[in-house]
Amino acid sequence: MKKYKLTIAYDGTTFCGWQVQSNGTSIQKQVQNALETILSHKLDLTGSSRTDAGVHALGQVAHFSTDKSFSIGKLLFSLNGLLPHTIRILSLEEVDENFHARYSALKKTYRYHLCLEPFQLPFDRLYTYHLRRKLDIEEMKKACLEFEGTHDFTSFANEPHSGSCAKNPIKTLYHVDLIEKDHHLTLLLEGNGFLYKMVRNIVGTLIDVGSGKISHKDIARIFAAKDRKEGRSTAPAHGLFLVKIDYNKDSSEISSNEG
Amino acid sequence: MKKYKLTIAYDGTTFCGWQVQSNGTSIQKQVQNALETILSHKLDLTGSSRTDAGVHALGQVAHFSTDKSFSIGKLLFSLNGLLPHTIRILSLEEVDENFHARYSALKKTYRYHLCLEPFQLPFDRLYTYHLRRKLDIEEMKKACLEFEGTHDFTSFANEPHSGSCAKNPIKTLYHVDLIEKDHHLTLLLEGNGFLYKMVRNIVGTLIDVGSGKISHKDIARIFAAKDRKEGRSTAPAHGLFLVKIDYNKDSSEISSNEG
Repeated sequence: MKKYKLTIAYDGTTFCGWQVQSNGTSIQKQVQNALETILSHKLDLTGSSRTDAGVHALGQVAHFSTDKSFSIGKLLFSLNGLLPHTIRILSLEEVDENFHARYSALKKTYRYHLCLEPFQLPFDRLYTYHLRRKLDIEEMKKACLEFEGTHDFTSFANEPHSGSCAKNPIKTLYHVDLIEKDHHLTLLLEGNGFLYKMVRNIVGTLIDVGSGKISHKDIARIFAAKDRKEGRSTAPAHGLFLVKIDYNKDSSEISSNEG
Repeated sequence: MKKYKLTIAYDGTTFCGWQVQSNGTSIQKQVQNALETILSHKLDLTGSSRTDAGVHALGQVAHFSTDKSFSIGKLLFSLNGLLPHTIRILSLEEVDENFHARYSALKKTYRYHLCLEPFQLPFDRLYTYHLRRKLDIEEMKKACLEFEGTHDFTSFANEPHSGSCAKNPIKTLYHVDLIEKDHHLTLLLEGNGFLYKMVRNIVGTLIDVGSGKISHKDIARIFAAKDRKEGRSTAPAHGLFLVKIDYNKDSSEISSNEG
């Protein structure tokens, strides 16, 4: 058996999320079906992040194992040929047998897009949350700093629907940055792991700070409560992108041969 | 009667084009219906450019006249409230009675997007032509220069379907620029006017030059033939954006009061 790592981009608009669910089409199922069709056997596809319905990805990572031998370049073309244009496999590489898309991840990067213009361009409607509101950017930047570092993120995590093991709520965020340009805000979050809806809950809280509903000083209190009921708003899914997942270079990549 | 100028952005994907046609929903009809609903009378909405099915706009311009008085800011909000999110009215202003969206235009700017990556990101699929081919950029840049200046563009124009008056085929292109970045090409075309499918025919010809099917030196011969049959490929609609239309500042704007 050899193990392979896929890097996947998708437009989450029409999917019920990454994970197989009873209601709707999941990205996981689409990719798994395409792999099973080409390799002619059943397999398990394990993703790194269970992105929700409507959340997009530029660099989701998943792994699978197979006995079949194939040309990596040809499999990549066949996969993208079978998949809808809303899902693209950007790369495929053989990895060490110990590699695990979820557990080997060192760092994940998410991006959230906000539009503060009175009217949103049609091209942004599926990828950017249109807020049509003035926000206090300096207050939001102070609030970003409150989220950096190691915290118990219970107040910023929802309970997953089902099927997830209890997770350690202690996570470390390396960076929470806010970039402002032409009435558009981009929030960049880098951390060693994220709980269910954690990014959208943090972004919702930052919007509440920017709107003056709470102060950046309230965030320490919300952390201390360790209770989602003390947490604030949840930002909608469609503004969120899973940008990339970093792994230890040595352990993950056996070969970068794309031929 | 007062005359008003609208600046309109739209995602052309789901429309049959700007102009009212028997098959499908046109952007013109959508905007006209919204205006008629709000102003409670029939009116004529005249657009500047008859963009085709699938072509997008960041700055289409149209005009209409009405006796009704209204707050410009409120009408703008009501219009965008009635319209689908694929069409946004970006601005509304009163103009001189001599203003005409088509005939008063001094300069139009179009942009065409090409992706040369082996796999196209899902987010580009509706807005960028995926060519998956190596192109000779230097040859294409030489070809761009052949299109600049004043020419008879008959070889690069299709016959319109119907309803259009015979147009003067002599047009002036002020700039035809090619910008290359990370396996993405952007073609920028600025001119005093464009014939039916002229941008897409020029882009198709530039792709033929980049692919080595013809040389940039063939373009003068194609111009001289004054025959569309001598022309080359037509690039698909979805890579094309009508970016903006420039008017004489003095003649077009009476008031910039958005209140």
